[in-house]
Amino acid sequence: MSKPLNTITAAMIAIGDELLSGRTKDKNIGYLAEKLNEAGIDLKEVRIIGDEEEMIVNTVQALMPRYDYIFTSGGIGPTHDDITADAISKAVGRPCIIDARADQLLADFYAARNAEYTSARRRMARMPEGAELIANSVSTAPGFIIKNVYVMAGVPVVFEVMVNDVLPSLKKGVPMMSRTLACPFGEGVIGTKLTQIQHENPQTEIGSYPHYEGSGFSLELVIRSRDEGALDKAYRSIEDMIDVLKRNKAAH
Amino acid sequence: MSKPLNTITAAMIAIGDELLSGRTKDKNIGYLAEKLNEAGIDLKEVRIIGDEEEMIVNTVQALMPRYDYIFTSGGIGPTHDDITADAISKAVGRPCIIDARADQLLADFYAARNAEYTSARRRMARMPEGAELIANSVSTAPGFIIKNVYVMAGVPVVFEVMVNDVLPSLKKGVPMMSRTLACPFGEGVIGTKLTQIQHENPQTEIGSYPHYEGSGFSLELVIRSRDEGALDKAYRSIEDMIDVLKRNKAAH
Repeated sequence: MSKPLNTITAAMIAIGDELLSGRTKDKNIGYLAEKLNEAGIDLKEVRIIGDEEEMIVNTVQALMPRYDYIFTSGGIGPTHDDITADAISKAVGRPCIIDARADQLLADFYAARNAEYTSARRRMARMPEGAELIANSVSTAPGFIIKNVYVMAGVPVVFEVMVNDVLPSLKKGVPMMSRTLACPFGEGVIGTKLTQIQHENPQTEIGSYPHYEGSGFSLELVIRSRDEGALDKAYRSIEDMIDVLKRNKAAH
Repeated sequence: MSKPLNTITAAMIAIGDELLSGRTKDKNIGYLAEKLNEAGIDLKEVRIIGDEEEMIVNTVQALMPRYDYIFTSGGIGPTHDDITADAISKAVGRPCIIDARADQLLADFYAARNAEYTSARRRMARMPEGAELIANSVSTAPGFIIKNVYVMAGVPVVFEVMVNDVLPSLKKGVPMMSRTLACPFGEGVIGTKLTQIQHENPQTEIGSYPHYEGSGFSLELVIRSRDEGALDKAYRSIEDMIDVLKRNKAAH
């Protein structure tokens, strides 16, 4: 699990019992994966865990030294099951405090709505001492950044605005480029030749993705590379492979 | 991370570069989560990792001793990027062999279709020595079970038939029951009282799930328990809390 030079890596931790019970289908992982991919940041792993302090602490501590960035979703609301701020504080060895800036933002938000700033709502101002805020243009309660951990909300619209708030400040890698070919032959027909093409094109990652759509399987071949020349060379080799197969089929 | 008595636990490992690049949005995690929940099996964590042997081996070895069952999806097709069978074999310390039963199933399948049983297709008969087969009623190529690891396909229709093939043979726990209330008050209003209700009902897990739907947030409260009496008691406490809030609001 060593990290090649010049790549920026990340892991995501999606926190919430409701994701593990099947009650809620996660929408944040795919969103973050796409955004990081566009930014040239390699998402190396995702973990989905429950609202359990020990599990959150252990997971954060295991991943922090391995990757440039750790992104979390979930568990930063005002109710008793929102324990992410406490767990992250413990994981980074900082006290969990009421952040004065977050406290002011929330007090102003509820005052403007003639709503009481309850002790439950004030829980949303809690975070590890020394954290930076992540803006929440949807519902004000901020996320936070501590060390290389980015702590964001679980509600997808809020998660998304928080991701977009932090993206400009992240170190960017060389974006991964990709080209896709629809392949009219099955994996079992092209597999051996495709392996050879992969070996001949080590600067690329060639993926083979079958889909099932009622009447049968279809196949997409995806070539990914950070080098445009390498990408084009592999693409042409796969095009040639498909052409040869088509000609052989026509000759029979 | 100790395991309470009488609970059956599981972890899932979703394998595939395409899940981490955002190209494919996973559908298998939510499906398995629901099925395990119905069977009273606690899904404790999910990890999404790429098609990298070392990562797969390390992840499988880390999770096998912690949970009753490990379920994997992805990487058992015929192409070069399908390395799950090799990695699982390495993780459990068994040679990766061509399984005679799987080989026969696949040979018959392609013979019946007048299609060549290519060396790429034969890769789908590979698995650790001593594995049991998981039936695939969609496209024949089987999954496999070795020790407590259940290795299944990544294509959702195939993953689903494999899950349904293995479910009857799994140890079942006491199913988790749940009741849901729509709450007309926000988390910030109910949070403190809800914490108290959670403390008074330790046999239940009370979750608070805000949703954002254009015009504003809505809130669902979900009570989960393996004990029906405990579930009802917590439910009534939350109903009472909402009634009191409604009366207070009407009195103003």
